[in-house]
Amino acid sequence: MKSNRKSYADKRRENVIVGLKSLGEKLYEHMLNGVFPWVEMPSRSIDNIFYDPELRQYVLGERKVRRSAGNVRHISSFTKLVWTAFFVKELTKQKKTSTLRDLYYSAQAYEMSFKDQSESDNIITDLETVIGYPREDFNVFPEERSAVFGDLTIEYNVPGYEGRRMNLTSHPDGVMIGPALTYADFVSTKADKVIAIEKGGLFTRFIEEQVHKKFNAILVLTAGQAPRATRTFINRLNSELDLPVYIFTDGDPWGMHIAMVIISGSANAAHLRKLTTPDAVWSGVWATDIVDYKLPSDKLTDRDIKRLHELAKDPRYKGELWQREIKTFLKIGKKAEQEAFSRYGLTYIVDEYLPTKLESAEA
Amino acid sequence: MKSNRKSYADKRRENVIVGLKSLGEKLYEHMLNGVFPWVEMPSRSIDNIFYDPELRQYVLGERKVRRSAGNVRHISSFTKLVWTAFFVKELTKQKKTSTLRDLYYSAQAYEMSFKDQSESDNIITDLETVIGYPREDFNVFPEERSAVFGDLTIEYNVPGYEGRRMNLTSHPDGVMIGPALTYADFVSTKADKVIAIEKGGLFTRFIEEQVHKKFNAILVLTAGQAPRATRTFINRLNSELDLPVYIFTDGDPWGMHIAMVIISGSANAAHLRKLTTPDAVWSGVWATDIVDYKLPSDKLTDRDIKRLHELAKDPRYKGELWQREIKTFLKIGKKAEQEAFSRYGLTYIVDEYLPTKLESAEA
Repeated sequence: MKSNRKSYADKRRENVIVGLKSLGEKLYEHMLNGVFPWVEMPSRSIDNIFYDPELRQYVLGERKVRRSAGNVRHISSFTKLVWTAFFVKELTKQKKTSTLRDLYYSAQAYEMSFKDQSESDNIITDLETVIGYPREDFNVFPEERSAVFGDLTIEYNVPGYEGRRMNLTSHPDGVMIGPALTYADFVSTKADKVIAIEKGGLFTRFIEEQVHKKFNAILVLTAGQAPRATRTFINRLNSELDLPVYIFTDGDPWGMHIAMVIISGSANAAHLRKLTTPDAVWSGVWATDIVDYKLPSDKLTDRDIKRLHELAKDPRYKGELWQREIKTFLKIGKKAEQEAFSRYGLTYIVDEYLPTKLESAEA
Repeated sequence: MKSNRKSYADKRRENVIVGLKSLGEKLYEHMLNGVFPWVEMPSRSIDNIFYDPELRQYVLGERKVRRSAGNVRHISSFTKLVWTAFFVKELTKQKKTSTLRDLYYSAQAYEMSFKDQSESDNIITDLETVIGYPREDFNVFPEERSAVFGDLTIEYNVPGYEGRRMNLTSHPDGVMIGPALTYADFVSTKADKVIAIEKGGLFTRFIEEQVHKKFNAILVLTAGQAPRATRTFINRLNSELDLPVYIFTDGDPWGMHIAMVIISGSANAAHLRKLTTPDAVWSGVWATDIVDYKLPSDKLTDRDIKRLHELAKDPRYKGELWQREIKTFLKIGKKAEQEAFSRYGLTYIVDEYLPTKLESAEA
């Protein structure tokens, strides 16, 4: 499985360093040529974001924006971008992590006066756009943590743990996906699929009912909308280990969209790749499941209905399954949660629903 | 450290079973004596909740309520309470966990028609009150998960993991506190203190900077308001291992209250014990730290100010430290986050602030 000696983390780090160096060299070159240094990057404004049916994700179009030190209106954001590149280089070199919040405060030590955190967050997104890698690759992580459980042996790369291995069945509450696990190497697995689950309660139920053994699966808890590190992790399970991915969410427009963001990403990340898993499958809870399984359900709210009409027009939802389910939701006017299967006993979801759904997806 | 052979989980389980049996026996007795069965429990209405300065937590007063099968107005809630006791006995016997949501849906299989989840949640709280143990002890867990990291070897009790041990430094992202860890046994530790931290970013920073080694500490991530399982876990670290507990939160009324709920609990849990750690210390970020360290800060909002005035009158906040800090917050009109120390570099909080605070707390 490990095709070469370089760890996954080292490769990501090198990519970032190459990107940062190339940025720095350009700036030096400009100055040596006697011009004000500038940076060019694809525009992230709404009218430059397109859905790419080939890549099955949002991408940025051709339009570019340029920030120049020679333009008084640009000089502040240009300087902040260069400082952020410097800060991030230090993080990467020292193998330290930071949050977006930390970065905002760290800037104050350098008298980089960001108006507020949304300004510094935006500069980080600029830097992602310039060098083409997500901020997690240069060690800037969000707060949220999700988890994973199943037969996968990983090898750590973080300082003090280099070369140490862990099997992800070691902790029966699930192993937290933080910076260390996100960039660990995958050593070996006997699993033949990945099952992603929206809610912690069901994740624990699946572990207790040994879904990982019975279905030979690696279980991933998304804990609501999956953090980007978790989406990267799912992408890696799919692309590096060649494992099919099945996603189980609540049966409502919000659950459906949790699945969609894992599959096709979000417009916010149109400037990035490798955060999506286009071949992942949304396996339930479908609107048609609510009917077929006579699930306890709640009435759709006005907000739910509005959201469904939005999704119906979204290019990511063009496929037959999605359109059918959106229509069914609107027709029955109902939604149901994953836990609704408990109506048939706590293990029904594992004994009956899950195998039926996996079979139909594999067929 | 392990004073007898019985695991922590077994002891909790036995307590619950004893409580459930005693409840059942009383009901049988009533019926054998030819009377309608009834249950009596302390009232949880506001006017029966008192702050106990000895226990340093909220407790219920003398007033009792009685639910009788002989009263038409009680028969529904009485029946649901008995059903819940039955359901929970099954969970405990089978060593399965459930969420509050699962329980709500499971009831439908028995035609226990709870109006909504808040009704079934309330019945679970009744059952806690009747048998005197938190719902986690009878395997009903919430969704939220926090984490722990440090030199503590634990031994699992959950099915399939009996007797397996893990050192809580094994996973450098932190080990998730779910059902399995909450009721694991503590085998051995070299740590001499516990540091609880509000935010994931700082928790990761502390691990990276080896706070667990440098300060010989077990690190607990509360992830905002600590879930009850985490408060139980902190109580156990303090009471079973005799470790002092220091809590670091954001410097605002909400952070202060995260610390307070770990220390003295909430009015909602007045019917329970062992969820609090009265000797735990709130070590920062204090209002006076904002002044002393010249931290970057934000203006208090009207909501913050209102909250501070509420806390000033709260019996849990009687102590000198709390009153001084509340006054200082109001005087300076400012609040600061933990990450604000990044203003002095990412490691300042570990190199300078933390040792100063721990020294002053130990003095």
